[in-house]
Amino acid sequence: MHDAAMDWIPRLDARALGDFMRDRFPPGHFTEGVDPWTIDHVGPGSLSMTLLYRPDFLRPGGTISGPTIMMLVDTAMYLHILSHIGPVELAVTSSLHIDFLRRAPPGDVVATTELLKLGRLLANGRVTVRAAGDPRPVAHATVTYALPATAPT
Amino acid sequence: MHDAAMDWIPRLDARALGDFMRDRFPPGHFTEGVDPWTIDHVGPGSLSMTLLYRPDFLRPGGTISGPTIMMLVDTAMYLHILSHIGPVELAVTSSLHIDFLRRAPPGDVVATTELLKLGRLLANGRVTVRAAGDPRPVAHATVTYALPATAPT
Amino acid sequence: MHDAAMDWIPRLDARALGDFMRDRFPPGHFTEGVDPWTIDHVGPGSLSMTLLYRPDFLRPGGTISGPTIMMLVDTAMYLHILSHIGPVELAVTSSLHIDFLRRAPPGDVVATTELLKLGRLLANGRVTVRAAGDPRPVAHATVTYALPATAPT
Amino acid sequence: MHDAAMDWIPRLDARALGDFMRDRFPPGHFTEGVDPWTIDHVGPGSLSMTLLYRPDFLRPGGTISGPTIMMLVDTAMYLHILSHIGPVELAVTSSLHIDFLRRAPPGDVVATTELLKLGRLLANGRVTVRAAGDPRPVAHATVTYALPATAPT
Repeated sequence: MHDAAMDWIPRLDARALGDFMRDRFPPGHFTEGVDPWTIDHVGPGSLSMTLLYRPDFLRPGGTISGPTIMMLVDTAMYLHILSHIGPVELAVTSSLHIDFLRRAPPGDVVATTELLKLGRLLANGRVTVRAAGDPRPVAHATVTYALPATAPT
Repeated sequence: MHDAAMDWIPRLDARALGDFMRDRFPPGHFTEGVDPWTIDHVGPGSLSMTLLYRPDFLRPGGTISGPTIMMLVDTAMYLHILSHIGPVELAVTSSLHIDFLRRAPPGDVVATTELLKLGRLLANGRVTVRAAGDPRPVAHATVTYALPATAPT
Repeated sequence: MHDAAMDWIPRLDARALGDFMRDRFPPGHFTEGVDPWTIDHVGPGSLSMTLLYRPDFLRPGGTISGPTIMMLVDTAMYLHILSHIGPVELAVTSSLHIDFLRRAPPGDVVATTELLKLGRLLANGRVTVRAAGDPRPVAHATVTYALPATAPT
Repeated sequence: MHDAAMDWIPRLDARALGDFMRDRFPPGHFTEGVDPWTIDHVGPGSLSMTLLYRPDFLRPGGTISGPTIMMLVDTAMYLHILSHIGPVELAVTSSLHIDFLRRAPPGDVVATTELLKLGRLLANGRVTVRAAGDPRPVAHATVTYALPATAPT
């Protein structure tokens, strides 16, 4: 996707995105107390972040729960879009499609996002989720975000 | 969908589903301490449940967050399928598609599920989410569950 | 879905929709020569149409092919939206999600659509597809349409 | 996606796939008379094919119609899966999600597929569609196929 024709330049780096989340979201929103994730990479058209393991992410059967993975996907795509349009908190998910491909064992989970389109009103991307250290995808999602009319892009 | 040709009979009622969730899921999984939802109706091919409002379900802008709604959708469909196949905890979400249609104001949120197909390996349903007291859908989802080979159905 | 709160009134009836399709789409677009479908019902928030069977709709195995069903779903939702916003040919599908639930035997296929939201920029609906005379759904889809800025709604 | 951990080896090349389609699908199924597509590449975990332009693929507004693109997506993924599991004609689409990102002008359209998972019962992939010669995606889809129990994989 990283064609020269799509020269997306991030405006916010990992630190600025982390500051934004801490400022605007209540503690305990994503999880209690401390942020359980790290933003690992922010680049043109792609972002990766890691959700740090906690036992309460598990579902019966001892694998990472679906809602936990969906929360990670949605957050990763949200941060990815903000990295490109700036700290516009009112960007909202318009639709999300996810396929769960394999069970994720207890441990950290990594989401890698790719922009497919960054339009004036809508942004589209896809997200691949993997267990840390395993190249096989655990889940794959496509997400559409509605951008507020006031966004600079 | 409730055609005579699809005579789905629930095996578990609201009380049995609530007991199942309390027994098998760790406290704090769905939320801290106490179950923040009620199962309002279990019938042939349909189920409705209410997520009771808590301020930490909000996202910036003061509306119910997307991950909260996805957690509700996934839980409602899971309980719906269990009500029909019995307490088979290893049923897992195979795919989920959700369209967010309107912002949900602070307050309780109601999910109503309908079965579309209950097969041997896969179950399909759709879920309509509304803010309590407002007939307009806040979100609409379709969910596919993979049923374990050991399920009685 | 047909709540009083969503008082959608169709502007175009079945005859007007048929005239629109004949005028604006080239012959052979939907199929060769003659229109192979009938619009059976147009009402507030719902529409149903029938795709009349032709052998070249079959795929190996002797069932109606997936692309045929997707064409029907997309056309039904397009006509449904036009019935409510008027003959605005430039409404375009923004996303489509479909679950194939059962194989459809050779024969007519019926699509029933329901509006979920008719906004200024986007319209959302869901479509249930059945083999004529069988209440069990063959496929279920959700469709998002982007409405041109010039649309009267 | 082309990790060493996922060493998918195609069993059928482009010629064998073309022969399969000509043998098993009726003339006029994909289009009248002659096959309007070429298979450009078959490799481990990826396939690309081109739909050759015909005027009746257009919709009002002069762009390639949605059903045409969905037919291409579904066919490309079907051929991709067959290239890996062999000529098992009864593989059927289980679900398909597509986002239409840009209008495709009159001209050839190229679909590139990537496998995400090739399981015993289900195969998952994603498909990026582009207008020939333009790197920007016109559409992006994820597709799930149900594999017949008799498939060799």
